[in-house]
Amino acid sequence: MGKYNSFRSLLNDFYSITLADSCYNRFGRDEVVYYDVFFRRVPDNGGFAIMAGLEQLVDYIQNISYSDDDLEFLRNNGISEEFLAYLKDFEFTGDIWAVPEGTPIFPGEPIVTLRGPAAELQLIETAVLQFINHQSLIATKANRIVRAASGHGVIGAGARRSHGEDGAALGARAAYIGGCSGTSYARAAMDFDIPLFDSMNHSWVQLFDNELDAFCAYAKRFPEKCVLLVDTYDTIRSGIPNAIEAFNRELIPKGYRPYAIRIDSGDLAYISRKARKMLDEAGFPDCEIIATNSLDEYIIRDMIMQGAKVDTYEVGERLITSASSPLFDGVYKLAAVEKDGEIIPKINISENVTKITTPGFKKVYRLFDRNTGKAIADLVTLADEVIDENEPYELFDPDYTWKSKEVTGFVASPLLKKIFDKGRLCYDCPSLNEIRDYCEAQMYTLWEEVLRFENPHKYYVDLSRRLWNEKQRIIEQVRGK
Amino acid sequence: MGKYNSFRSLLNDFYSITLADSCYNRFGRDEVVYYDVFFRRVPDNGGFAIMAGLEQLVDYIQNISYSDDDLEFLRNNGISEEFLAYLKDFEFTGDIWAVPEGTPIFPGEPIVTLRGPAAELQLIETAVLQFINHQSLIATKANRIVRAASGHGVIGAGARRSHGEDGAALGARAAYIGGCSGTSYARAAMDFDIPLFDSMNHSWVQLFDNELDAFCAYAKRFPEKCVLLVDTYDTIRSGIPNAIEAFNRELIPKGYRPYAIRIDSGDLAYISRKARKMLDEAGFPDCEIIATNSLDEYIIRDMIMQGAKVDTYEVGERLITSASSPLFDGVYKLAAVEKDGEIIPKINISENVTKITTPGFKKVYRLFDRNTGKAIADLVTLADEVIDENEPYELFDPDYTWKSKEVTGFVASPLLKKIFDKGRLCYDCPSLNEIRDYCEAQMYTLWEEVLRFENPHKYYVDLSRRLWNEKQRIIEQVRGK
Repeated sequence: MGKYNSFRSLLNDFYSITLADSCYNRFGRDEVVYYDVFFRRVPDNGGFAIMAGLEQLVDYIQNISYSDDDLEFLRNNGISEEFLAYLKDFEFTGDIWAVPEGTPIFPGEPIVTLRGPAAELQLIETAVLQFINHQSLIATKANRIVRAASGHGVIGAGARRSHGEDGAALGARAAYIGGCSGTSYARAAMDFDIPLFDSMNHSWVQLFDNELDAFCAYAKRFPEKCVLLVDTYDTIRSGIPNAIEAFNRELIPKGYRPYAIRIDSGDLAYISRKARKMLDEAGFPDCEIIATNSLDEYIIRDMIMQGAKVDTYEVGERLITSASSPLFDGVYKLAAVEKDGEIIPKINISENVTKITTPGFKKVYRLFDRNTGKAIADLVTLADEVIDENEPYELFDPDYTWKSKEVTGFVASPLLKKIFDKGRLCYDCPSLNEIRDYCEAQMYTLWEEVLRFENPHKYYVDLSRRLWNEKQRIIEQVRGK
Repeated sequence: MGKYNSFRSLLNDFYSITLADSCYNRFGRDEVVYYDVFFRRVPDNGGFAIMAGLEQLVDYIQNISYSDDDLEFLRNNGISEEFLAYLKDFEFTGDIWAVPEGTPIFPGEPIVTLRGPAAELQLIETAVLQFINHQSLIATKANRIVRAASGHGVIGAGARRSHGEDGAALGARAAYIGGCSGTSYARAAMDFDIPLFDSMNHSWVQLFDNELDAFCAYAKRFPEKCVLLVDTYDTIRSGIPNAIEAFNRELIPKGYRPYAIRIDSGDLAYISRKARKMLDEAGFPDCEIIATNSLDEYIIRDMIMQGAKVDTYEVGERLITSASSPLFDGVYKLAAVEKDGEIIPKINISENVTKITTPGFKKVYRLFDRNTGKAIADLVTLADEVIDENEPYELFDPDYTWKSKEVTGFVASPLLKKIFDKGRLCYDCPSLNEIRDYCEAQMYTLWEEVLRFENPHKYYVDLSRRLWNEKQRIIEQVRGK
């Protein structure tokens, strides 16, 4: 588990508290309901997103505890004494199923399903969404950037432009899940044991009377992993020659090799090629070139096409805010209620058809081709449905039902794992490195057409025939009223 | 001062610590240097930004304290014992000047200036930028949205889509500075005493067998400020008629008036007009209409043009992430060093001309027209320059110097206030309501052309003749090397 446990429990849109209070007073503690979390749009119009944030959600739920100040604030805002007494000793008693972190996820399918008393599930709505939405957003962005870098290292940075310190620290964690090789943010490295990346800034160079003195002082102090920032005055005419001189003066005589130079401005593709040549000619073919300066997957892809000689990309502001697409639109929707042991499906029929929910207590299977190992489709079913892998299965598009396809030779793997059972944690959160490795391996299960950055193939998220019929029935029932 | 003081001190890009360590060991505690914070681009290509985040920066600096775990982590990452001993008892001893929160700010001018030992100022770089960049971003966005709403209320929301809980809580604070009238986020309301906004969600409605029962139950429980969400099934045919029925059943007989209905989907402009008519005809002309659903300044402006009958806009994800422009690009740059009591200006000459810094210890005047009270230009000068308001002053464009203009009849008001004096807080942080009022009043100092959303007039940020000459001299000196 992570050490990052400073969350305040009062992490709520106020209505989630007033409605939890109302549920508690109206239905008591025994009204059992089901909620699903799902998202609607993949950031950057990509083909898939990466699930992340579950570990912090687990931490949060295990540590919910309202301070006296919290309770007093709620009292002053009209929350009932009965509910305050309940909050004082709050313990989560529900069940949670979730897609493991690092898994590719697709719009419309449940990525978290919760079962428990209505008051409890109302209460945790904001927190569930905040953790999952934030980290899934950044993990998805990082994954895109890392894939664009085609095997070159990507360091996550950008704490100075993040939306608060959680944005920076949890963002660094998510970026590591998505495939970054390290972080520049000390707090994230400490809390999550992410490899730490060090560097230099322009002001260090400016503090000295000349660039060479600054480089020599730094090389002397950090001979083992010496990264020199070469663009304070003039990269080609001054920065790189001075770096080479500093390497020769301070590192080589002591038996060290230079680690890298960093370029932070100018035409990075062009300058990196020149820099590579200068370093090679100076006898430093092993000295890496690190590029920074408002990078993202689009710029990195172009740089590589233009023959940039960059070994590692340090990506800051556009990663830590997912700048080109800064929203992950996960929602938290009631799917069913239990009445006398029976599960009654519930629907939300919005004016926007894309906002209509899929009712019922459900599960999700990912169908993998038994020969290629590639994911064929995700299939959302009612929770009691069993897929027989030995029989052909007919998939069909839930909107255009005439688009159908019979699949055979597949493995149907349940996507959601049980995380909490009656309030007890029953899931062993993997280590961050395990999550990152798993995420990387998952890429091989996706077709190239889904991995594509622009205009990806729309991966199938289908409903089982039974679930589809049930949904139509309920829509007609509700609209018929 | 705010109650929001849970910041960890280790809020650093790692290089700021290694370089602080290096400065400490190289220059000792007495090397005094100057840094400026400035930004380069106004989010959304607006005409100005709103300064915010200063109070949290003050809180942070007053409470810097490294835990034993922090120090152990740094020790394991190569930080020197001398510097660790210094960090253990760290106290900020420098001077800080800053633009007060709520002030319109413009690209290229110092918005924070710091003077102190090099080690200290290296150490706090990331934190200074994170606080100012994040909150200035959101305050600027909120200010745009509030202006688009033309006097209608704007409630800040979006915690579920924020980039972590600081993103939500500090974002709500910044949004209030920018002009929002309240927040839906309980924690922000509690920590910053922001008016709290309550509402209802779809799942409350779904929990009941029918919409009317859900509305009646809610109205019964919250008769004083009853907001009903009317789009769970069918806004016009079911939601609004049921809301009216619930008002008549539960509120009117008990002497209450309905507070509002909320519409969260569909064609908001069209539906709001219909809703207004239905409510008026039912005898509820005082019942407000609240609109939500991925709103921002562009959509609100269009809705108002289309005659939407909305009283209050609740703005979530696109405000709390500043979605259309999620970066505020403040930087922290060395401007000068002191040598034997003399201030030696320092410059950073980037390959990108927009990244070239303005050297020296400086101050900023805002020139106001004495008759209209409108801001004419901001003037960056060396710190010892005095502007004689009784003499004509020649302003000129620092890039196109032939563009010049003589101004008379102006008041020259210093923009930066002293916040810390030799480590001691010497500034009385205004209350959040004072900041918000001040920000609102500041709008009247800006010309319509600067306030414009698209293609605003570029407000003048000029350098004094002396500063301009000094900058040219240093550029030539450095590039001549």
